[in-house]
Amino acid sequence: MKIYDRPGFPNPSRIRIVLAAKGLDQAVEFVPVDLIGAEHKQAAFLSKNPSGVVPVLELDDGTLISESTAITEYFDNLDGNPILTGRTPKEKAVIHMMQRRAEAYVTDPIGLYFHHATSGLGDTLKAYKSPDWDGREAMGQREGDKVRASLTYFNELLQSRPYLAGDAFSMADITLFAGLMHADVSGITVPADYTALLDWRVRVSELPSVKNRSGQNFLQEDLTRLGF
Amino acid sequence: MKIYDRPGFPNPSRIRIVLAAKGLDQAVEFVPVDLIGAEHKQAAFLSKNPSGVVPVLELDDGTLISESTAITEYFDNLDGNPILTGRTPKEKAVIHMMQRRAEAYVTDPIGLYFHHATSGLGDTLKAYKSPDWDGREAMGQREGDKVRASLTYFNELLQSRPYLAGDAFSMADITLFAGLMHADVSGITVPADYTALLDWRVRVSELPSVKNRSGQNFLQEDLTRLGF
Repeated sequence: MKIYDRPGFPNPSRIRIVLAAKGLDQAVEFVPVDLIGAEHKQAAFLSKNPSGVVPVLELDDGTLISESTAITEYFDNLDGNPILTGRTPKEKAVIHMMQRRAEAYVTDPIGLYFHHATSGLGDTLKAYKSPDWDGREAMGQREGDKVRASLTYFNELLQSRPYLAGDAFSMADITLFAGLMHADVSGITVPADYTALLDWRVRVSELPSVKNRSGQNFLQEDLTRLGF
Repeated sequence: MKIYDRPGFPNPSRIRIVLAAKGLDQAVEFVPVDLIGAEHKQAAFLSKNPSGVVPVLELDDGTLISESTAITEYFDNLDGNPILTGRTPKEKAVIHMMQRRAEAYVTDPIGLYFHHATSGLGDTLKAYKSPDWDGREAMGQREGDKVRASLTYFNELLQSRPYLAGDAFSMADITLFAGLMHADVSGITVPADYTALLDWRVRVSELPSVKNRSGQNFLQEDLTRLGF
């Protein structure tokens, strides 16, 4: 199997954590994609994923799977023991609800804020991600506000449970964790008195599947190199 | 079990089709929500779903499940035979990929177009869905363009397969079907020469779980009553 991605970026980080949690790190060959140079917006990559985003999983039979949730479903179900996406109907439902909430409240809007309301990853990519239009800046700022409001929601939620979907670490935690890393480098940080959310973040970062993984230096290296 | 929704609306239609496909129509009590009056944006409803959208499933133990994908995972897995969300890891992955693509390309942007760039469902709801800001109209129009472009994508895809995820009808088809109903009433229609997409639509509408269901008159009654 191959994964087309760039280590350290939010969605690639999600899948690298999934692979570690499932003991599948060695099952995959990683193929680097030049995101700064907008390689994922050119025809060759778009033929693999018309959405023009990473990661993309290519199975040995040539099947192409994009969307982090879909890739997670694949790896998590391979051994018949879906610890990240849920074993019972109710577990699956709660995890998918919280997963979608983490995306809609954090990972989606932080991406829009980052690409529309900040310098993003530079001009080459911006031409694809955020071509100029009236309202672009205002829209990006509104998405940033959405992320800030969601921090309050997740902080309150985590006052009564250790992980987003309840007692067990799941796909939803991975999504929020990656989203908050993206928020950090975009300048939207968790307030110091949001202790439930901050405690959760420490708890997740210390899990064996998360600790010391590339995701934790997320983007910072690229941003520093680009001079942002 | 209870479902809070309003029949005929896009996401409620998705779940009603799921219930029919699984033979669970009689297993659920429906509780109407006044979407025109913005009941789903008030505190009582937000305590059930902070996202302020329908449908919401309430299990007999009080667990609240929102997000159509999550509700579908619940019902589809109850009998241990997940025909709509996939049985094998690869089926699950392809279905979740196409499901997310149907949402990101059609159901999400048509909702934004409908509420920001048209009269939507009237002023009461618009105050919550689309409070005025610079760029609102431009953003809505851009989302409409995204829907139009996606029709081309799905028409091409369906030239080589009967359903979005391959040979079998799945959750992804239900999502696109509901999205196109929303597009119709919003004034974005499938071009007459998009025969693969139009044929697929006929094929889906004739399935026993879809035929003659409330979803097919989607919104039109409300819109007519409101004078749009």
